[in-house]
Amino acid sequence: MADVATEHPFDADTRVEAVAAGGFAAHISDRWNALGGRPNGGYLLAVCTRALRQVMPLPDPLAVSAFFLRPGSPGPARVDTEVVRGGRRVATGEARLGQGGREVVRVVASFADLRRAGGRTLVLGGPPFLPRPEDAVDLLAGGTMPGVSITERVEYRGPKLPGWVTGTPTGDPSGSFWMRFRDGRATDLASLPLLVDAAAPAVMELGETASSTLELTVHLRAHPAPGWVACRVATRHLVGGYHEEDMEVWDADGKLVAQSRQLALLPGGL
Amino acid sequence: MADVATEHPFDADTRVEAVAAGGFAAHISDRWNALGGRPNGGYLLAVCTRALRQVMPLPDPLAVSAFFLRPGSPGPARVDTEVVRGGRRVATGEARLGQGGREVVRVVASFADLRRAGGRTLVLGGPPFLPRPEDAVDLLAGGTMPGVSITERVEYRGPKLPGWVTGTPTGDPSGSFWMRFRDGRATDLASLPLLVDAAAPAVMELGETASSTLELTVHLRAHPAPGWVACRVATRHLVGGYHEEDMEVWDADGKLVAQSRQLALLPGGL
Repeated sequence: MADVATEHPFDADTRVEAVAAGGFAAHISDRWNALGGRPNGGYLLAVCTRALRQVMPLPDPLAVSAFFLRPGSPGPARVDTEVVRGGRRVATGEARLGQGGREVVRVVASFADLRRAGGRTLVLGGPPFLPRPEDAVDLLAGGTMPGVSITERVEYRGPKLPGWVTGTPTGDPSGSFWMRFRDGRATDLASLPLLVDAAAPAVMELGETASSTLELTVHLRAHPAPGWVACRVATRHLVGGYHEEDMEVWDADGKLVAQSRQLALLPGGL
Repeated sequence: MADVATEHPFDADTRVEAVAAGGFAAHISDRWNALGGRPNGGYLLAVCTRALRQVMPLPDPLAVSAFFLRPGSPGPARVDTEVVRGGRRVATGEARLGQGGREVVRVVASFADLRRAGGRTLVLGGPPFLPRPEDAVDLLAGGTMPGVSITERVEYRGPKLPGWVTGTPTGDPSGSFWMRFRDGRATDLASLPLLVDAAAPAVMELGETASSTLELTVHLRAHPAPGWVACRVATRHLVGGYHEEDMEVWDADGKLVAQSRQLALLPGGL
């Protein structure tokens, strides 16, 4: 049994308890709030992924796709899972996270055993060029963002302060930076669905102050080394208020560990 | 009523007939087969999207995510739909396409009214630089691929013949080209989920001869102009047999109309 007293917040706050066949109780914490003071979407996705891990016949999330139906709230939640298709190489399941009887997130996810992925490898891209984390700047200038409690849990370092942090958005909605848990919890596959959504939206460099994720898909590519991950984020197409945000996550050994894309909507975009 | 005799194959072959509350009968045609002689995944997704359009309260697919569970086959199919969440701006539904009592594809999709998307627009990318379609080369050298019946329905033109077509893969799994229906059917939102999956996999330029799509997400950004669309495709990260394939689709007026990403697995990749 895990020693709850010494459990890292990420592990404590994504814990699920089986209460029925495929049904789990969860408690959504207020320690992972995003801009707007609501639980971060990646955090809700990590809870769903953890519930799915309990029922899937293969160990590793491979492709995880979430549709965010309503804002979540701190408090109790229920996650109902379904094994859609077992399989020797790839298995697919669905999870529905509800609060107060209303569905908040629907997730479909394929699982595999990434350590057994023995096919061809050819990586044409590479990790972003960044100063070593110990030589890099804390992107929140040593503080956290009031009300955005996820910034108390996750640490961000990069070559220089983002423009939006200093009140002068650069106009370029892209960037690269390091990320890790502040408390030293290792980066692993389970935490990547959170981390890909844990940074400030790239559109803040366009002077925007918030954006709501409608859909987020994460491709998990390899088990990461435990420490810092190097992230490259970009939005290139903002159309009628809708925009993508792409992220690549590379581990400290220079290995691609995740790619994600989300579709998000600026406030008042419609 | 549509005149079936003059209906375009895409419209005839994605037709669904309500047979129960949210349940539809479909017939999977052999006219959209991909490499391997099985129905193209994008075609199956287009059938699911068409069924969802019958039940969703908003007209336009916005974000469509499909997990391919088993290969489909020509013949009867059933599509069961569910409105997961209505909504004034965005509504989300699910579709499950089954054949012979076994689920083949699971789709979650958000719908919106893209003509009412009045928020901010800032497009940093642009369409690929291509010769005009009438000056471009037919990428199948004027023929079709035997057994790959989708190449009888869709036409591809680009600056020069792909390396894999001439037996000398270039080693660069990226490219840009024009695409349209051969029979003159207009490109529209409904056809984009098919078209993003209708071209030869980019990894054919790596000497590969097939790849199986596990997951495909399409973001629909705007109603396209009716004719040729300009596509930019790339795979950059092939890891252990798994690879992404990203596509951008721009209409003839230079407007971004769709972005897609799929996760696919090379044969024998595991």
